[in-house]
Amino acid sequence: MNLIIGRKPVLEAINSNDKIEQIYILYGQQGGIINAITVAAKKKGIKVNQIPLKRFSELSQQFSQSDIKNAQGVLAVKSAQKFYLLEEIINLSKKALSLGEGLGEAFPLLLILDSIQDTHNVGAILRTADCSGVNGIIITKHNSAPINETVVKTSAGATEHVKICQVNNLSQAIKELKDNGFWVVGSSLEGSKPYTAVDYKIPIAVIVGNEEKGIKKLTAENCDFLVHIPMKGKIQSLNVSVAAGILLFEILRQRNN
Amino acid sequence: MNLIIGRKPVLEAINSNDKIEQIYILYGQQGGIINAITVAAKKKGIKVNQIPLKRFSELSQQFSQSDIKNAQGVLAVKSAQKFYLLEEIINLSKKALSLGEGLGEAFPLLLILDSIQDTHNVGAILRTADCSGVNGIIITKHNSAPINETVVKTSAGATEHVKICQVNNLSQAIKELKDNGFWVVGSSLEGSKPYTAVDYKIPIAVIVGNEEKGIKKLTAENCDFLVHIPMKGKIQSLNVSVAAGILLFEILRQRNN
Repeated sequence: MNLIIGRKPVLEAINSNDKIEQIYILYGQQGGIINAITVAAKKKGIKVNQIPLKRFSELSQQFSQSDIKNAQGVLAVKSAQKFYLLEEIINLSKKALSLGEGLGEAFPLLLILDSIQDTHNVGAILRTADCSGVNGIIITKHNSAPINETVVKTSAGATEHVKICQVNNLSQAIKELKDNGFWVVGSSLEGSKPYTAVDYKIPIAVIVGNEEKGIKKLTAENCDFLVHIPMKGKIQSLNVSVAAGILLFEILRQRNN
Repeated sequence: MNLIIGRKPVLEAINSNDKIEQIYILYGQQGGIINAITVAAKKKGIKVNQIPLKRFSELSQQFSQSDIKNAQGVLAVKSAQKFYLLEEIINLSKKALSLGEGLGEAFPLLLILDSIQDTHNVGAILRTADCSGVNGIIITKHNSAPINETVVKTSAGATEHVKICQVNNLSQAIKELKDNGFWVVGSSLEGSKPYTAVDYKIPIAVIVGNEEKGIKKLTAENCDFLVHIPMKGKIQSLNVSVAAGILLFEILRQRNN
């Protein structure tokens, strides 16, 4: 994890072009520079977390106790991840296919993560995305887990290979995908077809949604198809990274048939 | 987590019929009763972990600092999980099917975990097993993650519903399964068929193996089929819980076709 410690360094990092994922402020910290950090972070859409000492110490485990004091109660997490524009993702997916990369040769495959909040899930999904030859991953900027060290670790290195794009407005992104010939398939629970009943031999963008709530109502309305995975048992709910794996590999299975 | 704290209570628990998963001893603890605990645990095949104070405190987070002192440097983790005998699992899988439970109606489906060591993976797999209507899960006793609180949490409650059997000798268990009409399918990387190329409309026991090493050589030799999931991308390795999900739901897909 790429950490910036100390009040002034964090404020400078926010105001520069450093890609800051999240800011952590120890409970009870006050003063002009703390306010300035909070205001500047809000303006840039960076999440600020007020946390207790125990959690603060955990975050800065690589530091000694004296280093933690030097942090003056403020930590920022920098992202090392390269992000793409949606346009780039779309163009690259077409280009990759013409070069014979990806699966099924003829049809691009994109994956959309709508507010996946658990970093382990995001990491596992990125790993599966790489293994299934997904051409690009679109992640909603708000309510999504940051691409942090846990994601990198859980992804087994996939964060270095997969192409990620963050979007503010998913409806607009879906419109842009449709304009570029993609069919949008949403994973849902209600009122949807079994996931095996759709013909995936077309350019596809698959959406998987939040761990608790699934994909948003508005997002679902924008999908060309809604699909569900028929289940047995008492739980009736798969982990989202497992569900994503089942969907992606069904697409591959069909395209290779 | 069901914890037993203190030297004497832990020793008594080992010697009684309590199902102890693991024992944790703080570094530097010595004396006759510590030796007695170590010897008794070894005799019963219970893992003993020597751990530093930081980890010891984390394990006993629900206790106050004074409680931790009362633990006298010794903690034992009790299992609340009900375990079945292999014979029971086999009989129940046949019975469940005759009652119309499970998938595909006519064919039992068992899952074997060969030395899966990460508790998050075991939990995720149990959750998927429940969702896919698996009739029972066979777990190797050695080198496997214990069914602890992390497993229970990650399983989203599946540990209460799935039927688990622990076996000492997997080769013997495979023989017993074959004698009962099961076909044993191992998930492997080399020298194996694509997972979609096997007809699963038969009684099946699927084996998934250790996160690093896969299924053991001897286990692989005992399988009727070895299958792999064809992959693209740079990582070429799925998380084992995702791989298990893809295999199980392909079996369901075929059986429902």
